[in-house]
Amino acid sequence: MKPVIVKMLTLAILMMAALTNVAGAAGPATPPAVDPLPSWSDGAAKTSVLEFVAGVTTKGSPRFVPPAERIAVFDNDGTLWAEQPTYVQILFVFDRVKALAPQHPEWQTQEPFASVLKGDLKGALAGGERALGQLLMATHAGTTTDEFEKIVSEWIATAKHPKTGRPYVEMVYQPMLELLSYLRASGFKTFIVSGGGVEFMRPWSERVYGVPPEQVIGSSIKTRFEVRDGKPVLVRLPEINFVDDGPGKPVGIQMQIGRRPIAAFGNSDGDLQMLQWTTAGQGPRFALIVRHTDASREWAYDRLSSVGRLDKALDEAAAKGWTVVSMKEDWKEIFPAPRR
Amino acid sequence: MKPVIVKMLTLAILMMAALTNVAGAAGPATPPAVDPLPSWSDGAAKTSVLEFVAGVTTKGSPRFVPPAERIAVFDNDGTLWAEQPTYVQILFVFDRVKALAPQHPEWQTQEPFASVLKGDLKGALAGGERALGQLLMATHAGTTTDEFEKIVSEWIATAKHPKTGRPYVEMVYQPMLELLSYLRASGFKTFIVSGGGVEFMRPWSERVYGVPPEQVIGSSIKTRFEVRDGKPVLVRLPEINFVDDGPGKPVGIQMQIGRRPIAAFGNSDGDLQMLQWTTAGQGPRFALIVRHTDASREWAYDRLSSVGRLDKALDEAAAKGWTVVSMKEDWKEIFPAPRR
Repeated sequence: MKPVIVKMLTLAILMMAALTNVAGAAGPATPPAVDPLPSWSDGAAKTSVLEFVAGVTTKGSPRFVPPAERIAVFDNDGTLWAEQPTYVQILFVFDRVKALAPQHPEWQTQEPFASVLKGDLKGALAGGERALGQLLMATHAGTTTDEFEKIVSEWIATAKHPKTGRPYVEMVYQPMLELLSYLRASGFKTFIVSGGGVEFMRPWSERVYGVPPEQVIGSSIKTRFEVRDGKPVLVRLPEINFVDDGPGKPVGIQMQIGRRPIAAFGNSDGDLQMLQWTTAGQGPRFALIVRHTDASREWAYDRLSSVGRLDKALDEAAAKGWTVVSMKEDWKEIFPAPRR
Repeated sequence: MKPVIVKMLTLAILMMAALTNVAGAAGPATPPAVDPLPSWSDGAAKTSVLEFVAGVTTKGSPRFVPPAERIAVFDNDGTLWAEQPTYVQILFVFDRVKALAPQHPEWQTQEPFASVLKGDLKGALAGGERALGQLLMATHAGTTTDEFEKIVSEWIATAKHPKTGRPYVEMVYQPMLELLSYLRASGFKTFIVSGGGVEFMRPWSERVYGVPPEQVIGSSIKTRFEVRDGKPVLVRLPEINFVDDGPGKPVGIQMQIGRRPIAAFGNSDGDLQMLQWTTAGQGPRFALIVRHTDASREWAYDRLSSVGRLDKALDEAAAKGWTVVSMKEDWKEIFPAPRR
C-alpha cells in the first residue's frame, strides 16, 4: 500500500479504538500515556486510584468489572466543592430570604428571618433544625420545579464566595474534576450523592462536573402534579420528601441507581454509610476520603467541625484501609485557574 | 487506490460513523438503510416515529435536540409487556403467598391470604386496596434488598404465563424492543416509568429491555440502612414510599431524571399525566399510546377494562394528535419468537 493510505487506515483504526474506549466497550490494559490526574502529587493516594482503575478496566484481570457495573458515587459538599465557611446552599437560603423579604413584611420581626435580614447568620441558625427547616421551606417551596430551576441558575451565575470572591462553581476541586473525567473515560458512570438539595445541584452539575441531572441524588421536598390553565406543572411543597445524608445515602443510592457502586468518594461522617455500603459488596471496591488539611490554600478541619465533621469515618478508614487524601500533601492544585 | 483499499477505508469510515452514532455524538441525517422497526407495518404510526427521530437527530434541523436531552420514557405493563389476565407482579404476589404459607399457618383462615391459597384470585382481590396492600407488604417487605433481588430473579426465571405457558420475559412486545433499540442507537437514553415495583423490574430490565437499573423508575416501599453482624444491609419495610402511577409519574420522572423527557410511550390512563408532562415542554415532543386491539394475537381492551383502562388518555390523544398504535394493524408481530 502507499504510505499515505497506510497512514489513513492506521488513523481510522486508532480513531475507532478511541471511540470504542469512550463507549466503554473495552478498557485500557496499559497505563495511560498522559497523566490523567496531573493535579495529584505522586504518592499512595494517587497510586491507589490508578491501580484500582487499571484493575477493573483490564480484560482478563481477576479484578475486571464490566462497564455496566462501574458505578462511582461522589459526595458534593467538601468532596467536590468547598463547604466553608458554611454549605453553599445555606448561603443561597440567606440570599433568597433577602430577595423575598419585600413580600414578607412580617419577617422583619419574626425569627429566624429577622436575624437573616440583619446579617446575623449565627443568630439565624441558633434555632437549630427547626429554624433551618423554616428557612428551607420558605425559600425552596411554593414555586414550580421550572421556576425553582430558573432561580437557582440565576443565583449560581452571579453569587460569589464570601472569602475568595470567586463564583461558587469555581470553588470546586481541580483534582476531583480530573478524577471524574478519568473515571468516565474508563467506562464509569459517575453519580453525585449529596445531602444537599437535588434541585439545587441539577441546574449546574452537568456544566461544572459533567454529571447530568439523572445522575444526581440528593435531599428533596415533595412535589405535586397540577394542571394550571391547561399547562401541567410540578409544585414544590413545604414537606420533606427524603434526607440523603448518613444512613440515607445508601437508601438514596438503592432508590435511584438500584445497584451497588464499586467506588465511593466522601469527606465526612455523613458519607460513612455510603462508604460502608459500597465496600461491603463482592469484587473490587474502592473508598476514598478527602481530608481537609490545608489551612492556607483551603481550610483545615476534621473531628471538631460543625460543618463536614470527619471523625468516625476517619477511624473506619484507618481500620479498613480506605484511601485518605490529604489536600495539603496529595493535591498540587486545589481550585481550577479562574476563568479569564 | 486499489479497490480493496477503497473498500477497507470505506468500511472503516462506516464503522466509525456507526460508533459515533452509538455514542450519541452525531445523529443520522439520512434515513437508515436497514429498517430499524421491521415488526412495524408501514403506516401513520411507524412514519410518525421515524419522522420524529429523524428530526431530533439531524444536525442543522430546526427540530434537532442535543443527545443529552434525548430522554424517552416508557410505561411497562401493557406498553412493553402483556398485562392480561392481570399484572405480572400480582401473579408474583400470589406465588409468593403460596411459597411463604408454611411459615404462616394463620393464613389458612385469614383473608385475603386464605383465598389466595385456595386459588380463588377474585376472592383474594375482593377486599380492594386494603387487601392488595396486605398481600403486597407480606410478600415484598421484611427481606433485605439483596434477598428480594434474588427472590425476583429466581421467580422470573421459572414462572410461566397462565394462558400462553411462555416465560413472562418472553411476553414482551417485539415492536417495542425494536423501538427501544432504535431510540438508543439514535442517542436516546431510555427509561422505564412504571406503576409496578421498581425492585420487581430491575433484576431483569437490563437483560430483557436493555434498560439498566438506574434507568428504571417505579413504585417503592421504604428501606432502612442497618449494620447486621458487621455487614451493612438495606431492610425493606412494610410502608409505601412512592406510588409511581398517574400524577405520580411526572413526580417520579422529576425526582429521578430531573429533566423533562422529549418522548413518552404508554397504554393507559395511568400514563396520561406522563404524556401531558412530556408534551408540554418546549421544542419537539412525541407521545405514543399502544392500543390493545388484537383479541386473537394478544388481548383487546380499552375503556371498560379494570386492568390498563384506556379512556381519558384515548380522548386526549385524539384531541392533541398523539400517535395511537393499533396492535392489530400496526404490528406485524406481537411477541418475539420463543427461545429455542
